[in-house]
Amino acid sequence: MSIIVQKYGGSSVGNTERIKNVAERVARYRAQGDQIVVVVSAMSGVTDGLIKLAKEIMPLPSEREMDMLLATGEQTTIALTAIALHALAVPAVSLTGPQAGIVTDGVHTKAKIQNITPKQVHSLLDQGSVVIVAGFQGQTHDGQITTLGRGGSDLTAIALAASLKADLCQIYTDVDGVYTADPRIVPAARKLPEISYDEMLELASLGAKVMQSRSVEFAKKFGVVFEVRSSLNENPGTIVKEETGSMENVVIRGISLDKNQAKITLVGVPDRPGIAGCVFRALADAAINVDMIVQSVGHGAGTPATDISFTVDKADVLKARKVIDGLKAEIGYREVIADEKTSKLSIVGVGMRSHSGVAAKMFETLAKENVNIEMISTSEIKISVLIDLAKGEQAMQAVHAAFLE
Amino acid sequence: MSIIVQKYGGSSVGNTERIKNVAERVARYRAQGDQIVVVVSAMSGVTDGLIKLAKEIMPLPSEREMDMLLATGEQTTIALTAIALHALAVPAVSLTGPQAGIVTDGVHTKAKIQNITPKQVHSLLDQGSVVIVAGFQGQTHDGQITTLGRGGSDLTAIALAASLKADLCQIYTDVDGVYTADPRIVPAARKLPEISYDEMLELASLGAKVMQSRSVEFAKKFGVVFEVRSSLNENPGTIVKEETGSMENVVIRGISLDKNQAKITLVGVPDRPGIAGCVFRALADAAINVDMIVQSVGHGAGTPATDISFTVDKADVLKARKVIDGLKAEIGYREVIADEKTSKLSIVGVGMRSHSGVAAKMFETLAKENVNIEMISTSEIKISVLIDLAKGEQAMQAVHAAFLE
Repeated sequence: MSIIVQKYGGSSVGNTERIKNVAERVARYRAQGDQIVVVVSAMSGVTDGLIKLAKEIMPLPSEREMDMLLATGEQTTIALTAIALHALAVPAVSLTGPQAGIVTDGVHTKAKIQNITPKQVHSLLDQGSVVIVAGFQGQTHDGQITTLGRGGSDLTAIALAASLKADLCQIYTDVDGVYTADPRIVPAARKLPEISYDEMLELASLGAKVMQSRSVEFAKKFGVVFEVRSSLNENPGTIVKEETGSMENVVIRGISLDKNQAKITLVGVPDRPGIAGCVFRALADAAINVDMIVQSVGHGAGTPATDISFTVDKADVLKARKVIDGLKAEIGYREVIADEKTSKLSIVGVGMRSHSGVAAKMFETLAKENVNIEMISTSEIKISVLIDLAKGEQAMQAVHAAFLE
Repeated sequence: MSIIVQKYGGSSVGNTERIKNVAERVARYRAQGDQIVVVVSAMSGVTDGLIKLAKEIMPLPSEREMDMLLATGEQTTIALTAIALHALAVPAVSLTGPQAGIVTDGVHTKAKIQNITPKQVHSLLDQGSVVIVAGFQGQTHDGQITTLGRGGSDLTAIALAASLKADLCQIYTDVDGVYTADPRIVPAARKLPEISYDEMLELASLGAKVMQSRSVEFAKKFGVVFEVRSSLNENPGTIVKEETGSMENVVIRGISLDKNQAKITLVGVPDRPGIAGCVFRALADAAINVDMIVQSVGHGAGTPATDISFTVDKADVLKARKVIDGLKAEIGYREVIADEKTSKLSIVGVGMRSHSGVAAKMFETLAKENVNIEMISTSEIKISVLIDLAKGEQAMQAVHAAFLE
């Protein structure tokens, strides 16, 4: 007898009909003799509706009270899901996050799970019940209700799977799994049967928005194997797990395109120690997330000067310019150029470690397409290039064809 | 510094505008230097909406899961009310029933409060916060969420007032207080400045639906003085408290008319011991509530026979007839007559104990109006008569004029 944790997102439980569908799927799994724990999100639209009510009263409501308010969304879904299982004559009991033993720190609206004591979950499973747990929520040691922030229900599922030593953790969503590339851009994209945590993390942070990075990090840390799959069909999804030897046989696992990056260049920066530190400290203090950074080799005669380029989210460009303007006197750069017509193309794969020539092949492919590379950054299993926004999709298709078709 | 408990019902918190109004009232009381505990119901319509969702899935959902589901209604209101107080710069913290220390038995959907440990409420009050508590809900000793059934939020307020030894408990509703009679029927009806628990209980059980009996009983048991008043204006309401000597100076406190009573008569019942016991045991076993009972003196020649009449809720008439039909062979009555065209008129007042001639005056008044009395029942502080439904309102006006104008 296995323990299976299944997580269903907001659109999978968006109305009572869909909740009944979820119950039918749960019942089928249970009929195979397994113990099932179901983690559900708030019905789609419910959380937004609650936020709207709060903002009608006050633009910036207290985070503690927002947690109190939003936690009702998942609590509604667990009760309805339990009732839907009862309607199929399946014994089921719902538990709030606190009742399921999920203890967090006290950082309201983005609490971190500190530990899980799933005593009640175990005892209900042993009594033969399906256990329905509210995702996204927990409580502090002194009983304050907290929520886990964006993607919190995935985290609940993975943390519960770790704590219950579950045999399988399934994340049901509205996509079929993880693809080699976004199929809307690359029609030849294929669903991956499996992917390593590290590859998934690179893809998550690169904007392939299947799951939040911290859920994948948590799964990696505790060795939770999970499957991303669709609640709308019976297709197998993508298994996310620790890297295996055979994974390296595939050079590139996937390709992502992030159209949300803008490039900012400080031209004519004096080439002396401490300048880069000064710039990026100021940006960090303003809570601006910097992704790629390139500093060109010093050039020009007389005072040695250089250029510093970096990328930020397009939404942060104005804020970043303000910060940089404030440093003008201190640093003495010549000018600032912001370019929002850029996109970041990345290839990801653990096979890069053991295959040489991957970067060369990527750059050659882009050259053939007449795509100019503006910046490059690499990690052990990833190569990212910043290119013209207008050529992003064409470049993605070409690189996909070169590596994956 | 006093502790004041204020309870606001579903229509008082029916939308964000009304919640803001509630917050303003709370802020005014707090500005006078008192410690305020606010108990709120679910926003009107929310509970019905949740019940509808559950019934879309299953006609008779589990009571445990209904408690899980419905408890979200009050939890939503407490968060929004706390936010509304923050918007007025008043420190406020919301607590669910379980967080406020309300422990109940495990009878889901109609749990009884077993005890309250308001440690957290006291500590928040001492820190200067208004404390907003979710009405209608609690938890069992082992952490199951329960709800208290109809009128549960009133009960939460009164039980909290008892447990906190509050100086004042205010029940805000959409009526101004308790009246001598329903002003929609008797234009001359007056609001009562005060009423005793026992009188309030008689009126509550007689259909003057300001509050559920069990909340009044709880208040009487623990000596909680409370005020019923309107959340729509600043008028003083009606104080409900233990009987005082001066209360007996008023002969009649109020009059109620219950149009929901039907009379069932068993004609020609053998006049021998055990018959009445047999009839009313069978009705009780079928969970039919019997109100008035009259057995006429035996009459007729030969075998002594009698008639037994009683009243039940109109909704129970069919069920009651079925029960009686099933007793035909055993008892051997001649026939059964059900009359739904009846109403019950009652006068209530602790002054009856020390004033004679009250019943005579009531009967004379009805005779003058040509109203026939079909049944009579009395308690120490109440006289009820069953009369023709069509003459109910006219009779009520006449009796009000005789005693109260």
